[in-house]
Order: sequence, then structure tokens, then C-alpha cells
Amino acid sequence: MTGQQTHVFRHKHIFGLEQMSREDIEYIIATAHSFKEISNRSIKKVPTLRGKTVVNLFLEPSTRTRLSFEIAAKRMSADTFNIASSTSSAAKGETIIDTARNIEAMNPDIIVLRHSSSGAPHLLARHVDCPVINAGDGTHEHPSQGLLDIMTILEHKERLDGLKIAIVGDISHSRVAGSDIIGFTRLGARVCLAGPATFIPYGIASAEVEVAATVKEAVTGADVVMALRIQKERQQDPLIPSLREYAIRYGINREVLQYARDDVLIMHPGPINRGVEMSPDVADGPWSVILDQVTNGVAVRMALLYLVLGGVKESQDTEG
Amino acid sequence: MTGQQTHVFRHKHIFGLEQMSREDIEYIIATAHSFKEISNRSIKKVPTLRGKTVVNLFLEPSTRTRLSFEIAAKRMSADTFNIASSTSSAAKGETIIDTARNIEAMNPDIIVLRHSSSGAPHLLARHVDCPVINAGDGTHEHPSQGLLDIMTILEHKERLDGLKIAIVGDISHSRVAGSDIIGFTRLGARVCLAGPATFIPYGIASAEVEVAATVKEAVTGADVVMALRIQKERQQDPLIPSLREYAIRYGINREVLQYARDDVLIMHPGPINRGVEMSPDVADGPWSVILDQVTNGVAVRMALLYLVLGGVKESQDTEG
Amino acid sequence: MTGQQTHVFRHKHIFGLEQMSREDIEYIIATAHSFKEISNRSIKKVPTLRGKTVVNLFLEPSTRTRLSFEIAAKRMSADTFNIASSTSSAAKGETIIDTARNIEAMNPDIIVLRHSSSGAPHLLARHVDCPVINAGDGTHEHPSQGLLDIMTILEHKERLDGLKIAIVGDISHSRVAGSDIIGFTRLGARVCLAGPATFIPYGIASAEVEVAATVKEAVTGADVVMALRIQKERQQDPLIPSLREYAIRYGINREVLQYARDDVLIMHPGPINRGVEMSPDVADGPWSVILDQVTNGVAVRMALLYLVLGGVKESQDTEG
Repeated sequence: MTGQQTHVFRHKHIFGLEQMSREDIEYIIATAHSFKEISNRSIKKVPTLRGKTVVNLFLEPSTRTRLSFEIAAKRMSADTFNIASSTSSAAKGETIIDTARNIEAMNPDIIVLRHSSSGAPHLLARHVDCPVINAGDGTHEHPSQGLLDIMTILEHKERLDGLKIAIVGDISHSRVAGSDIIGFTRLGARVCLAGPATFIPYGIASAEVEVAATVKEAVTGADVVMALRIQKERQQDPLIPSLREYAIRYGINREVLQYARDDVLIMHPGPINRGVEMSPDVADGPWSVILDQVTNGVAVRMALLYLVLGGVKESQDTEG
Repeated sequence: MTGQQTHVFRHKHIFGLEQMSREDIEYIIATAHSFKEISNRSIKKVPTLRGKTVVNLFLEPSTRTRLSFEIAAKRMSADTFNIASSTSSAAKGETIIDTARNIEAMNPDIIVLRHSSSGAPHLLARHVDCPVINAGDGTHEHPSQGLLDIMTILEHKERLDGLKIAIVGDISHSRVAGSDIIGFTRLGARVCLAGPATFIPYGIASAEVEVAATVKEAVTGADVVMALRIQKERQQDPLIPSLREYAIRYGINREVLQYARDDVLIMHPGPINRGVEMSPDVADGPWSVILDQVTNGVAVRMALLYLVLGGVKESQDTEG
Repeated sequence: MTGQQTHVFRHKHIFGLEQMSREDIEYIIATAHSFKEISNRSIKKVPTLRGKTVVNLFLEPSTRTRLSFEIAAKRMSADTFNIASSTSSAAKGETIIDTARNIEAMNPDIIVLRHSSSGAPHLLARHVDCPVINAGDGTHEHPSQGLLDIMTILEHKERLDGLKIAIVGDISHSRVAGSDIIGFTRLGARVCLAGPATFIPYGIASAEVEVAATVKEAVTGADVVMALRIQKERQQDPLIPSLREYAIRYGINREVLQYARDDVLIMHPGPINRGVEMSPDVADGPWSVILDQVTNGVAVRMALLYLVLGGVKESQDTEG
């Protein structure tokens, strides 16, 4: 598949980038690239996972991540099953463990879990035999997002070593930031964080992670600027600035971007609150690689499903 | 496919019947007929759209239209993805354009859109590269419904030229009426409208469209009587008659049908409020072609998906 | 398929175990076993129902039964369509009959119905031509659950004849109990019921069905103990004991199980209220076959879909 078959992918589950070495990350992204190349040759569907069963267990609302995993699975001819929170037995008081063990008793090949509690995928994996992929757990990690962000930067910059990457927003509550900071620094980038004081985790600064006093400081000389989504539902908190105030002090706009490098990449995990964390002209401007992120998301998820299932080319079935 | 390959289907998107010539409409329906004939030979699945990705983006509740598009797509071996309003990021404040561009970045082959705002499909199509099919937009058009209505009439009457077609109900707020009036008149029928004054758009009368003072007048001599669904949720409006009053003055029942032609067709886009806009004996009676409409809906949607995707027989994939 | 091809499966619809002879039940379970064996040989997908259309019409919330039917259908290569109550036209006031007739007009091969009203599948079947499978109707029957319970007992005990099976809980409102009591007794078991007086249907005692005064009495000498799920939503009723009281008097725990046979099987239709109707150590203990029930559920549903569709190996399609 990738010409890198010497690397052994030793992860049964995908919990986060925390557990991955630099080599793991590079191997996943090389695999994702080979899937993306196949798609570019307009081969939309490969039989790689024919007969495999992928359960998308999304116990927190999501359109885009669920759709991306579903497309990834179906492009490899897997059968997909969606369980969303609203229709699940969670309403009946069933615990995540009981739900998962019941699902597992139906013999799926993989469970993709989105859950509002940090650590839910680890808990799940201790109670089921099949592989578990974390599709976002609480404020902890969102590994497929971290990987697609790395893939997108690599496509444009070829390396992360030595890059300065600014991440602006609610770092504390963002699982995207959680995975990004680990992945970016593991591949050699320096990360510079900016946001309201209540949004920056205490003690996060390290050799590779800097906390800037202002957005301008974070963005200055940056190769990549990633704005995080503001959770409007948190705006009741009196310690949190209003949306208008946030836009003025932390919004990414043309004015602040003049301090970044000329070839800066603008990223956002989506969906964007236009005019809040990012101005529309920046979101849609020439530096934006936001839609590349989405496209790469499908390729990364194909790679994760493929590698976790052992890189098996085709399951034994009678369909030929 | 149809023996009419001389006609070039030049529509990238399907917004409404407004954009279609008589030849376009006839070509779509001929294509739908050929799909229906295949189904009648109990060939349930054809590989026509194998490897193609159809996203059903239903941002307004719908069971039947969504199911009909999904069945149409799967009968042609496409992969389908459903996004319903309740589970979408719309809850997170994402605009339709951002949603659509994100979906498009995942490389679907077609987006089928149901939206509560008139014009949403046009807006969407300006921001994505892939074809868009309107599955009902606000009070504007519902083109696949208009086409299946025409197909159903043609099956029984062979032509629309010279027919008198009565449409009874809330014309102003009905996207079904919107598409039907355009399609019926474009194929040569005369349309006669009836309903409470507040339900009839001001200035709609033309050479081909008449406004009747009473249901009896509309139905007299009619070849086809189409009753529209009463939106019970609008009954708060004091200008709107009560359901009981509506049933008495505008309900289609045996009594009023004695003024229609003997071979009158009874149609309804469903779901029917039995005893309100139509009496049960009429809905289930010998003149009713209401279930034919549903059956033809699948065939019309197969034709639309097939033609919009360029009449390609099979995508390049490695599944052979 | 089963080596028992001499038995003719004469059921067009699956309403409940009431309509089934002992031979019918044994034939379905033999068929389910052969599907389970194929799965055990890690053949995950068979082309048996390729081109067939299965509509899961779930007008009452359900995760597990819906997922089980969906997995069963897809393992046999059928196309599945899910209609859940929240997204259905039921909100628009459409009756079950109109919904079903509209679905049927789209030519599905089978409708799987979950409905909150007892008898809904019979009603549906009178108005559609295609087969109907009851996936749970009100407080009446849940035949696929009854069959998977029998299959699970047979796997461990080889026969039901002469077994004592205790069923503990809200017998009156349980469709699982409804199907189990019929099926267990038809295959020769004695059933002993226990639960609060308001939960035991008046006059249910018969030659094969006994009503015990206490759980201890029901469990004494039992080969199988099945605990039913307590519906917490019914706890407002003053005649119904509190959860704590219920756990003390009717909960299945190690203490009460010492009166059962040493090789007793512990069953539960799920999802379990741990600590209410069953203690966690019992649910997860060595006697528990609760997850076997779930696994067998997929096999039983494959058998039902297969047999109802006439045991056809493959539909005529052009996919080869």
C-alpha cells in the first residue's frame, strides 16, 4: 500500500496522539496519502474492507466527523452502522459499557466512539475485544483531527520541524488543541498559544509550547495559524469574554495576519463562527487550507480504519 | 438507456421545473419509465452508479422524500449518506454554505437538499462544484414531486395537452403546487386553482391558469383533481378556516367529484389528512392514483440522479 | 441451508410465537444456527439477499433491536433503510397505515416494524403486500427476542423439555415475557413467574405456567432464570414498589441463586438496570449468557429475514 511496509503498526486502538511515536504518525499519514492518491485518480471505491462492519457510536452530536468516518468506511466497501445519542438506549439509562458490550456481542470489526467524557474510549476498550477508534472524547483528544491537521501542514510545508504554529482560542476545553499540541511538537514544531487567561491550561508551557500574551505575539512569524471554535454555549460564564469582545481581541483577521509569515497557512477545525474567531475574508482567503483539512480527514480516517484492522486487504467472504 | 439519446441533458443542477423545457421534462420521464420497466422485470438493483456518493442533506424533516431518494440511489448501487437536521451542525450555528462546502470537501458526487428556505439549492450550488438536486425548498419548488405527478398523469392519460387539472388547497405555501403549475402548463394542460382566498397567490391567473370561485367550479369537467395537504401547524392564523370548515368547503369527496369527468384521476402529494382535504373513500377509491405517485417517485429520482451524473454507466473502480 | 429442507416455512409474516408450531420454532433456530456457524468461520457477508430492500420502521425508540436487524440484513447483502419515529411523518399526523402503504409503494421486500401499540404488525400486514416482521409491538410479543432466548437455552441445555424456567419482573407489560412464555412452554418447559402482584396478569396460571409467591420459590430448582427489565418510567404508579424495594424483594443476586440448580443459566433481554433487577456480579458472572443472547439475536434475525423472503438464495439482478 505505502511502500513503507517495514513499519509495524502496533496499535490495536486509537485513543490519541499521546500514544503514538513520530514514526507511527508519519506512517499513518503516508498511508492516508496513498488513499488520497487513489481517490485523485477518481477511483472512488476500493474493496479493502469488504465484509467488515464499522459501528459509528456517536453519543454526542456530530455531523462532520461522523460523515467523514462513514465516507471513509464505505469507500473501502465496509458496512457502516450509525448509532446517534438521540436514538440510543442511553435514554433508557444504559451505561456506555453495557451499550458497548452489547454492540460487541453483535461482532462488529471496529467501534468508532464520540463521547462527551474524556477517557470514554479507554474505558470502552477495556470491556470489548474489538478495536476502538476515538472520534473525540470530552476535552481530551480528537486524534483523527490532529492527524489530518498534520497531513494538511505537511502537504504545504513538507515538514513540521522548526515551524512556528500558533493556536488561538479555548485551549483548555479543546480536544482538537489537545491532539494538535502533542502531534505538532512530536514532529518538531514549536507551538505558541493565545487566548483569554481562563482558556489557557495552567502549567502548559514547556520547551516546545509557549504561551503568548496577545494574539499578535502568537501570530508573529508563524508558519501556521490555527483558530479554534468558540463554544457559544459556554458564553454564560462571566469569566469568559463576550463574542464581540473575543472577536476584537482574539479573532484572526487580515490586520493581525500581517505579522505572520507571508506563506502562513490558516486552519480551523470547523465549523467556523465567521466574524468571531475568524473573519470571513481570512476563512475564504488564499492562505486558508480549511477545506483541505476536510478532504484530508477522509483519507486519514481511511488510513486509521485500514491500519487498525491490520492492513487486511479483504475479508474472507463468499462474494468474491 | 431510453432510445432518446439524441436529447442532451444540459442541467448540472435540478432546482425546479422553471428551468426545464418541455423536452427536458419529457426526456426525464422517458428515462424514469425505462428504470421503472427494469424494476417491473424484478431486477431490483443495477450497477449504474456503483462507487458514486449521494449525500441526502435534509435540513427539514422528511420521511418519504428522503426514503425515496435513498431507495433510488441504492437501486443504482450508489452509496448514500443521510444528514438530518436534528443531528446536523446547524444546531451549532453553522450556515448552510459552510455545511455544504465542508460536505463537498469530502468529494460526494451529488448533494440532494431539502431546506425550509426558498432558493437554498441555488445558494448552495454557487458554493459547491458538485451537482445539487432540490428535494423541496421552502414554498418554492419540489421538482421531483412535480415530475412524478406528470409521469403519473401521462401513464393514465398519455398526454397533458388539453387536460383540465384542478389543484385545491393552500397554493401560496405549497412547493408541490409551485412545481406542478409550471410543469402541467408547460406540457399543455390548463390548471384551475381553488382554495380559501388567503391561500391563492395574488395575480397568479394567466392564459393557462384559472382561479375558481368554488371547488365545484374547479372540479367541473376536470381530468385530474389534485388536493394539497393542509398544514395543521398553520391553523393558528385567524384568517385561515378551521379544519372542519375547510373539509366542508374545500374537501374532495364523492359529492364534489360528480362534477368531474368520469375518468378523473385523484392525486395527493401525501401524507393525507383523511377527512380534511380528502375523504377516505376518495383517497382509497378507484380514481385514486396516489400510490402510483409514490411508486413513480422512486423511478423519477433514479432518472434525476442518473441524468445529473451525466448518464455515466459505471464509475471507475477496482471492484469490477 | 439447514439440512431440514423437508419443513415448509409457511409464514408470510412474523407476528409472534403464538402463530408458530414447535416445528416452526425448531426450524427457524436450526436455520439461525447454520448462519451462526458461517459467521464463526469468519465469513462475515453472504450474498443471500443481494438486491433485497429491508425497511426498518421503528416508531418507538430502539438501538439494539434495530442494530441487530440492520446487521442481520447487511450480512446477507440486503439494502437497509431506517425510519425512526423522530424523523417520521408520524409527527405530521400520518397514520401507521398511510405510512406503511406509502413505504410499500416504493417496493421494499420486507418491513420490520417496532411499534408502541400491540397488534400494529397485524394491522400493517392487512394493508401491505410485502412481508412484515414484528420487532416488538406494545406489551404483546417480541418474537425475535423469544426465538433468540430459546436458541440460547438450547445451546447450553440441548432441550427445553422438562426444564424449569423462572421469569421475574413485570410480566404484564413485557412483550419479551409474552413471547418467551409461549415459546418456552411450546417446547416443553415449565415456566414459573414471580413479581409484584400488579405485574402478574390475572389468570395466567395453567398446566405449564405457575405463579410463585416469592422469587425464592420461583428460582428454587430452576434451570434458567430470566430477569425482566424494570421500566423506570412507570415508577410514578403508587401500586408499584420503589426501585430499592424492588431490588430487595425481586432482584436476582447470589443469595437467591443458591436455590437454583448449580448449572442455572442467567438471562436478561437488556438493557440491564444493574443493582435493580439484577446485581452486577450475577449479570457478569459465570452463569450469565446475556451476551450470548445478543450474539444469537443477529443469527435469529438473519434466519427470519431469509425464511420470510422464501429462502431465496439471490435476487435477479445485473450485478452477477
